[in-house]
Amino acid sequence: VSETQTATKLNSADSALRARAQRVIPGGLWGHQNAAHLPDGYPQYFTRAEGCHLIDVDGRQFVDFMCSWGPVILGHRHPAVEQAVREQTSRGDCMNGPAPVLVELAELIVDMVPHADWCIFGKNGTDATTTCITVARAETGRRKVLTATGAYHGAVPWCSPSVAGVTAEDRAHLLHYTFNDIASLEAAVEQAGHDLAAIVVSAFRHDMGKAQELPTPEFARRMRALCDETGAALVLDDVRAGFRLDLGGSWEPLGVRPDLSAWSKAIANGHALAAVTGRERFRQAATTVFTTGSFWCGSVPMAAAVATLTELRRIDGPAHMARMGQRLRDGLAERALHHGLRIDQSGPVQMPTVLFVDDPEWKRGFAFCAEALRHGAYLHPKHNMFLSCAHTEADVDAALEAADAGFRHVAR
Amino acid sequence: VSETQTATKLNSADSALRARAQRVIPGGLWGHQNAAHLPDGYPQYFTRAEGCHLIDVDGRQFVDFMCSWGPVILGHRHPAVEQAVREQTSRGDCMNGPAPVLVELAELIVDMVPHADWCIFGKNGTDATTTCITVARAETGRRKVLTATGAYHGAVPWCSPSVAGVTAEDRAHLLHYTFNDIASLEAAVEQAGHDLAAIVVSAFRHDMGKAQELPTPEFARRMRALCDETGAALVLDDVRAGFRLDLGGSWEPLGVRPDLSAWSKAIANGHALAAVTGRERFRQAATTVFTTGSFWCGSVPMAAAVATLTELRRIDGPAHMARMGQRLRDGLAERALHHGLRIDQSGPVQMPTVLFVDDPEWKRGFAFCAEALRHGAYLHPKHNMFLSCAHTEADVDAALEAADAGFRHVAR
Repeated sequence: VSETQTATKLNSADSALRARAQRVIPGGLWGHQNAAHLPDGYPQYFTRAEGCHLIDVDGRQFVDFMCSWGPVILGHRHPAVEQAVREQTSRGDCMNGPAPVLVELAELIVDMVPHADWCIFGKNGTDATTTCITVARAETGRRKVLTATGAYHGAVPWCSPSVAGVTAEDRAHLLHYTFNDIASLEAAVEQAGHDLAAIVVSAFRHDMGKAQELPTPEFARRMRALCDETGAALVLDDVRAGFRLDLGGSWEPLGVRPDLSAWSKAIANGHALAAVTGRERFRQAATTVFTTGSFWCGSVPMAAAVATLTELRRIDGPAHMARMGQRLRDGLAERALHHGLRIDQSGPVQMPTVLFVDDPEWKRGFAFCAEALRHGAYLHPKHNMFLSCAHTEADVDAALEAADAGFRHVAR
Repeated sequence: VSETQTATKLNSADSALRARAQRVIPGGLWGHQNAAHLPDGYPQYFTRAEGCHLIDVDGRQFVDFMCSWGPVILGHRHPAVEQAVREQTSRGDCMNGPAPVLVELAELIVDMVPHADWCIFGKNGTDATTTCITVARAETGRRKVLTATGAYHGAVPWCSPSVAGVTAEDRAHLLHYTFNDIASLEAAVEQAGHDLAAIVVSAFRHDMGKAQELPTPEFARRMRALCDETGAALVLDDVRAGFRLDLGGSWEPLGVRPDLSAWSKAIANGHALAAVTGRERFRQAATTVFTTGSFWCGSVPMAAAVATLTELRRIDGPAHMARMGQRLRDGLAERALHHGLRIDQSGPVQMPTVLFVDDPEWKRGFAFCAEALRHGAYLHPKHNMFLSCAHTEADVDAALEAADAGFRHVAR
């Protein structure tokens, strides 16, 4: 990756595919992976992935720091995961009920996650967050749900960042607090009164385009206390952060345990799976809520999850990602300083956000990332990134060389 | 399967797994595949699947007529699908964007489905139905959605068959009509007035535990006319029936085309995928709705879908399933008559429901199915079943022998 890669924007395989897609897919692609939101030169289509390396349809190779926006935690095509997938595939995937691996996976998670007395599986992070609030409402018999202003909890009408097609009633029982602001949390709890079913909180504040913010211990403890006082469920949305910070749940280091947690993304190293974990108190309610899907008993993603979580435990995945993330953060800080640039690095090092100071429209961020991309590092200008267990010191160092080119470009 | 299989209920591998699951999964299993809803003797856990045959954890083998409740349409572990899966897996699955197979799949569906000018992919049938109504609301700027009383459109608060954890507001803008009842449809349209965003309809009426009912051409045409008059979207929920009746959509034989369709289940022969297809008019709205998920750009299920749909087209899958389904229906009718039993067979032959006449609590249905199961046929006493392209005449005949034992048992 030391040679500059040429972004052959016109007449490239990528632009040809985008033109074809434009005809048959609204806007070319739905959702968060639409490359139209990224700087020019970013590929939309990929042909190959291995470890922390991606190859796009024009043959350009990148050290990747998005990991498919989270799911890839051990690295693409990890041998232990793919071996488990092949074995389960040779037996059966989607049958008239689960394979025994369901029980193995549920037992593994209940063993690994201290607050978890039980779990339910699904396919999307949104399945998990929606199930959490539905179970909380079923158990409490109440309706109000608190979320932090600006927090992302999924892509359906009750929580979507877009209000297109959303009715007022879809959000009738949502109230908001400000992350890390105890007074605002108390005010929202007060406002919900006797109708408070749940407080939903992300592992940390990771609003797109903004510096990330870890929860203060006081804030987390106050939230727990308010839930205990009111009988509301503390719902930890660990969809994005889950398994990168702590295998027992992202709030374990704070010593604050949720009542219900939503998990997805990294749980099966890219295979489609989500989970809800919960405390005993919510078990009965979870049987009354009807939550299901055509592929939710599919056993191959469950086999992938058992292999992924077992491997993460074996190698202490979070510690590895923390080391590599710290190396990236230190290297970026040093190089930015060298070029006289002020950057703001925030969030846990395993899930870093890198912003330029005084860059409200991310112009410098876009220029930096586009140039780093040309030098072989796939970074994101405004969303948090993701380390994986496949990142080595050499990979981080290669990315730092690419980032150096990006900083040099911005400094000019 | 001519020998009677012994259901070793106690001390079986199945009951051991159920006991373990009971500890870590609320109620033992969530949703529709919970075997607690089935007659005694039905297995919950499976170890192997091949074609239309299932093997449970106690080694019992069945000719299967549930096909994982729909997804398995070519048969388990179909060579063409699994070959496509292996090839795509060897390149990459869940990357920072899709693989080229996304475009191939979208083009294939737009080519195959006459009303489809575009498509969007997801993971669950519920993703697809929810996206349809959100897109319809976004395009029309209206809120009311009509569904048939008792129809199943998914497992989230706006449409779940359970109201546990559901608030009144989740369904504030739903109005209902009776399937095949034009007057009730007109009344609901009138009630919605200028706020009518969409009429949602299943391919046919397939309410659990009841005889199925095909739409009358008059009903379908009237629905189309009402949508045209009011500007509302006709949303066909083809999640369950899609690709079994007609590869262009289940209402093609009626000559009535929807504005939006929801698809899932059989689209990728058991791999997790869903789709929304739509007409040009709704394309722009589909770009404003935020619908996405962590695994929605995963390329392996897309490769499975291309292989599945290509194979279904090549072999005329719906015609094969119709022949096998007719053979099953004729054989069941003949044998029931022979035993002096009155049964009610309903719905398209590819998706049959078999009920006993005057059996409101499905007691005879349960006894019949339990005995047929002991003789090697996995039938369902109250839900529609599914044929697949893997069913041969010999498989159907073997199932008819098992059914004969079931009828004999009920007749005694």
